[in-house]
Amino acid sequence: MQRWRFQGNKELASASSISTNIQGVLSSLKQNLNQNDTRPTIPLGKGDPSAFPSFRTTSVAEDAIVDAVRSSMYNSYAPTVGILPARRAIADYLNRDLPYKLTPDDVYLTPGCTQAFKIILTVLTRPGANILLPRPGFPFFEACTARNHVEIRHFDLLPEKGWEVDLDAVEALADENTVAMVIINPGNPCGNVFTYQHLHKIAETARKLGIMVIADEEYQHLTFGSNPSVPMGVFGSIVPVVTIGSISKRWMVPGWRIGWLVTSDPDGILQKSGIVDSIKDCLNFSSDPATFIQGAIPQILEKTKEDFFSKANSLLREAADICYDTIKEIPCLACPYKPEAAMFVMVRASSFLSSLLEKMNVYIYIYELLFKVKLDLSLLDGINNDMEFSLKLANEESVIVFPGVAMGMHDWVRITFAVELSVLEDGLGRIKAFCERYAKKLL
Amino acid sequence: MQRWRFQGNKELASASSISTNIQGVLSSLKQNLNQNDTRPTIPLGKGDPSAFPSFRTTSVAEDAIVDAVRSSMYNSYAPTVGILPARRAIADYLNRDLPYKLTPDDVYLTPGCTQAFKIILTVLTRPGANILLPRPGFPFFEACTARNHVEIRHFDLLPEKGWEVDLDAVEALADENTVAMVIINPGNPCGNVFTYQHLHKIAETARKLGIMVIADEEYQHLTFGSNPSVPMGVFGSIVPVVTIGSISKRWMVPGWRIGWLVTSDPDGILQKSGIVDSIKDCLNFSSDPATFIQGAIPQILEKTKEDFFSKANSLLREAADICYDTIKEIPCLACPYKPEAAMFVMVRASSFLSSLLEKMNVYIYIYELLFKVKLDLSLLDGINNDMEFSLKLANEESVIVFPGVAMGMHDWVRITFAVELSVLEDGLGRIKAFCERYAKKLL
Ligand SMILES: Cc1ncc(COP(=O)(O)O)c(C=O)c1O
Ligand SMILES: Cc1ncc(COP(=O)(O)O)c(C=O)c1O
Repeated sequence: MQRWRFQGNKELASASSISTNIQGVLSSLKQNLNQNDTRPTIPLGKGDPSAFPSFRTTSVAEDAIVDAVRSSMYNSYAPTVGILPARRAIADYLNRDLPYKLTPDDVYLTPGCTQAFKIILTVLTRPGANILLPRPGFPFFEACTARNHVEIRHFDLLPEKGWEVDLDAVEALADENTVAMVIINPGNPCGNVFTYQHLHKIAETARKLGIMVIADEEYQHLTFGSNPSVPMGVFGSIVPVVTIGSISKRWMVPGWRIGWLVTSDPDGILQKSGIVDSIKDCLNFSSDPATFIQGAIPQILEKTKEDFFSKANSLLREAADICYDTIKEIPCLACPYKPEAAMFVMVRASSFLSSLLEKMNVYIYIYELLFKVKLDLSLLDGINNDMEFSLKLANEESVIVFPGVAMGMHDWVRITFAVELSVLEDGLGRIKAFCERYAKKLL
Repeated sequence: MQRWRFQGNKELASASSISTNIQGVLSSLKQNLNQNDTRPTIPLGKGDPSAFPSFRTTSVAEDAIVDAVRSSMYNSYAPTVGILPARRAIADYLNRDLPYKLTPDDVYLTPGCTQAFKIILTVLTRPGANILLPRPGFPFFEACTARNHVEIRHFDLLPEKGWEVDLDAVEALADENTVAMVIINPGNPCGNVFTYQHLHKIAETARKLGIMVIADEEYQHLTFGSNPSVPMGVFGSIVPVVTIGSISKRWMVPGWRIGWLVTSDPDGILQKSGIVDSIKDCLNFSSDPATFIQGAIPQILEKTKEDFFSKANSLLREAADICYDTIKEIPCLACPYKPEAAMFVMVRASSFLSSLLEKMNVYIYIYELLFKVKLDLSLLDGINNDMEFSLKLANEESVIVFPGVAMGMHDWVRITFAVELSVLEDGLGRIKAFCERYAKKLL
């Protein structure tokens, strides 16, 4: 019999396992949809509103692409760091919010924010290294970190403090092998915005620990509450900052695959420690954004009207309000924080009676009882956790929401409000009906 | 004093070292250009003619991009395997040359052929694994393989046999830890095309060894000699084949970053051995081609006129002829094989007297003598190897050619003929002058 010597890499399978893989989670939810439900499926699971008419990108961006392709100036391979005009335009764009000036040399082009994370992670990888990630966070980061054999240590974001970083936990977690902490600000999945003061404390803490800050600013400027969003790079002279971002969310074009990795390092620490050279080495192996999309970047960043952004933000504000207000009315769901940025809200779910009681402010007094009750209830209802909640909701109501377990948050679900308003209202209505059905059974 | 705990990843630096890094080699050549030379620099170092007017891509391809962007249907994230219409179009395109039918499920979209290689390599990575690579080959493959800690074993391509694979060497090199052999057909850097019979033998050899064949068919259909280019997938029922390719070269748009990984596996061996699942896992972490470029693929593949291809191929034929004929006239350079595909010719260089004598057919008789003479000559002339040849040529004549050392071929250089004809003639003229200058000194 013929023998073959090759086999699939098993490590890949475990790193992309269900608990860290957005695509995997979403596809198992989709498989659970009821084919006989004639209603449209409501996708509140992921942060990509670009297919909805209200969130169509600006024609300025489309024009920029068309101009770049028609020019035939951008058909060649690009330098691995990206073409200069695009790097310069990104530096200028970010400089609007910084107290000092980034140069094009501080900017590296990547195919999106996710790939920028992959690059800085690869740069930081060494045997024994660990990295501090927020919980809840962005599952791709966990998957990517696991794949690189870098140890993950989670610090909590505190719902009762507006999802601020638990800085005591950060200090307790770090040791001599810790290389970086990651923040996502404005926040996915919590829709929060860190204050200037809190970012300053993060910088001081990181400095004290001798670690860099990786700041995911994918949702920068996608804010609609009272906190302005301050870039972490503002604190670059306290601690070296690697900022990652893209045009995916602000321009509503995640399929265009262009983003950046930027070093905010006025004191040259990243240079001296070999990080900068290592970023360049890593870019030699990585995929580049299409050259003509790079060519379109100056026009996209410079020519987009303020109007486009303010319309998108108002729409998101309205959607967040609807979402928050409706959830308040839903039994079994609790939302500790009204989102003021990005596209998501974190909602506590699944422990039905507990959330009912919580609304009555008796949560803390009967904790032990609750815990038991919850388990019993789960047995009764066949909803034992947020994953099952999401699966049943998909099956019974054709609504997709993202289970918290994939973000390290048991008994929570993440709901995207960045969809067409009519779709959101329909979806929330179905979630309400679903919860009422189950709540009735319980009481 | 402040201590920082992070540092650049040193492994990256060594994997992207000069000898395996095209960009690195080219940039050190560029640094050696003489700023006072008023003549234009002639870039014969890389395979990217897209910036020359004669090699401008077809308007069909540009229109396809414009239509896709304007439709606003492709702004969202794409599935990690690629969007279905694009996968189907690629299957159809490749099926024209295959005896059985690929389905869209056999096709995975990647940001170019290079990234497709990275994916299959990552899939095959396991402790102790080794892979057989051609020498001369494509430096990116060596760099990538080194980075993944997969052992590289080189088999030679034989210049005297039209750069066919040394299959005896393949058999001698393989052991129980060998997982795959790589072929590049049509060939970079040799410009050769394997015959049907030779490919058949490669398939039989790989089957005997129990290894898969990774077939880089980046230059498929870019042929202009007597051998038609047969895809390796034709032999998929003898040995499982993973074919990697892209539109970079045939459509002259390497900056567009879209290509494919295709499994030709009629007997489902790659499925059973977990390779297919592993490819999908790997795609969860990889960068995707921009969605609207994926959306343009059906139109690009289906609508491009035969005319565009035949014009490009005639132009390449003419350029290859000029190149071959001029090199014949140049002292110190020898070209054993007239290219009939792709964009390059391999030229033996640097051992000046040896190549002169070789032209007189006395090479084999005085091998030992030659060797010594060569060293002495080198001392005299300050040209000790192909890297120095390339550096001096850049400095004295503002012509960039690619040194063989970066492809494992000492004393050879690779010359790209895929440039505007007038530029090629200018470049070859300067190479001739350069060689005559040095030859005169020697004789
Ligand atoms: C926190 C965060 N970072 C990064 C990304 C992905 O960004 P990009 O599309 O630029 O790769 C997302 C997308 O959902 C995100 O939520
Ligand atoms: C043999 C070979 N494979 C792959 C590539 C790169 O292909 P792509 O642009 O599709 O990544 C090249 C480019 O020079 C090449 O010569």
